[in-house]
Amino acid sequence: MKAKVPVGVIERLPNYLNCLLQLEKQGVDTVSSKRMSYLTGINSAEIRRDLIYFGTFGIKGVGYEVKYLIQKLQHILGSDIQHKIALVGAGNLGSAIAGYDALKKHGFLIDAIFDQDTKKIGTRIGGIIVSDIAEIMEVLSGKNISIAILAVPPAAAQTTANKMVAAGINVILNYTSTIVEVPDLVQVHNSDPVNELLYTLHYLSSQSTKL
Amino acid sequence: MKAKVPVGVIERLPNYLNCLLQLEKQGVDTVSSKRMSYLTGINSAEIRRDLIYFGTFGIKGVGYEVKYLIQKLQHILGSDIQHKIALVGAGNLGSAIAGYDALKKHGFLIDAIFDQDTKKIGTRIGGIIVSDIAEIMEVLSGKNISIAILAVPPAAAQTTANKMVAAGINVILNYTSTIVEVPDLVQVHNSDPVNELLYTLHYLSSQSTKL
Repeated sequence: MKAKVPVGVIERLPNYLNCLLQLEKQGVDTVSSKRMSYLTGINSAEIRRDLIYFGTFGIKGVGYEVKYLIQKLQHILGSDIQHKIALVGAGNLGSAIAGYDALKKHGFLIDAIFDQDTKKIGTRIGGIIVSDIAEIMEVLSGKNISIAILAVPPAAAQTTANKMVAAGINVILNYTSTIVEVPDLVQVHNSDPVNELLYTLHYLSSQSTKL
Repeated sequence: MKAKVPVGVIERLPNYLNCLLQLEKQGVDTVSSKRMSYLTGINSAEIRRDLIYFGTFGIKGVGYEVKYLIQKLQHILGSDIQHKIALVGAGNLGSAIAGYDALKKHGFLIDAIFDQDTKKIGTRIGGIIVSDIAEIMEVLSGKNISIAILAVPPAAAQTTANKMVAAGINVILNYTSTIVEVPDLVQVHNSDPVNELLYTLHYLSSQSTKL
């Protein structure tokens, strides 16, 4: 069933899940699609349509049961079980990612950290020793890690991605502004923080045109 | 015309622009939608359809003129002129954002940085003095900044967003995992790095189901 759900729907599920986890923390039991729409910025009709793909969980006049929907979405996304990931780059960005509370919340465990800076190698970030990127193959062997986060300076992105691929990583989350090229069987997801800014900018300039 | 373009199309334009800027740096003059598809991960038919919204720039058998298409996209997105932004949060994440080369490339200039940590206030990040968040109103007054980046710890996200709004910020880029509530006229764009991980996870688990 999973494979038939449109990509756009799957892309929005993490937003719903985040919203629901925050509501749960606030002690909220049920939520309307209207309230979810206000919190996520996603149209309420779209929310209802998206969630129907996974069965109809909403009760008319009551809304969605927060806890139940969280369990459902976590199961659909696969975040109800723990996933080990590797982090490559122990600079400001890497450290920010390693300290990100939401990673743990969604079952992600950083189990290896790499850098090429001798000043960083051997130090600890969140309890994990920073290893030399030159030893990625040895360190990852037997660890069963297939996802890695790329958080190195842009100029080092491609060579680092090559090392990741050689070490058996098949999903790369690229947080650099460099587009990296990898073999067909490896997936790269780009998450450039500037993209959001550019997107926002368009709407700002559309608004000013309308004034 | 801008207002009629679907949101999904606008969302993809920064990806195209990034890809083209990288090709330009590599000295590439023309590019096919197929090559752009390989680099961005977006379907080539979708790329062609998207770009038609802004006029047909592709030449059959030759492709798109890289420099020309960059200019066009920058103009559409509004990144051909400089935009001043404020950064709130001078920790690892804020420092990573401030050092992000792609910001400058797209015409974004961080013109004010705030934090509440007295150890950080008064220090400089990329030449900009870190100001006390308590003084955001005074510091921003007369600066003509309407966009701010929220990069504080999750527990401080809502109170900080309130301060931003009070200081006249009307677009917030939220890099925390907390959903913040703001008045209707203020836009919030959430950019949670974990969303990409969750999205990826779904496809990983779909793959394993298929095996």
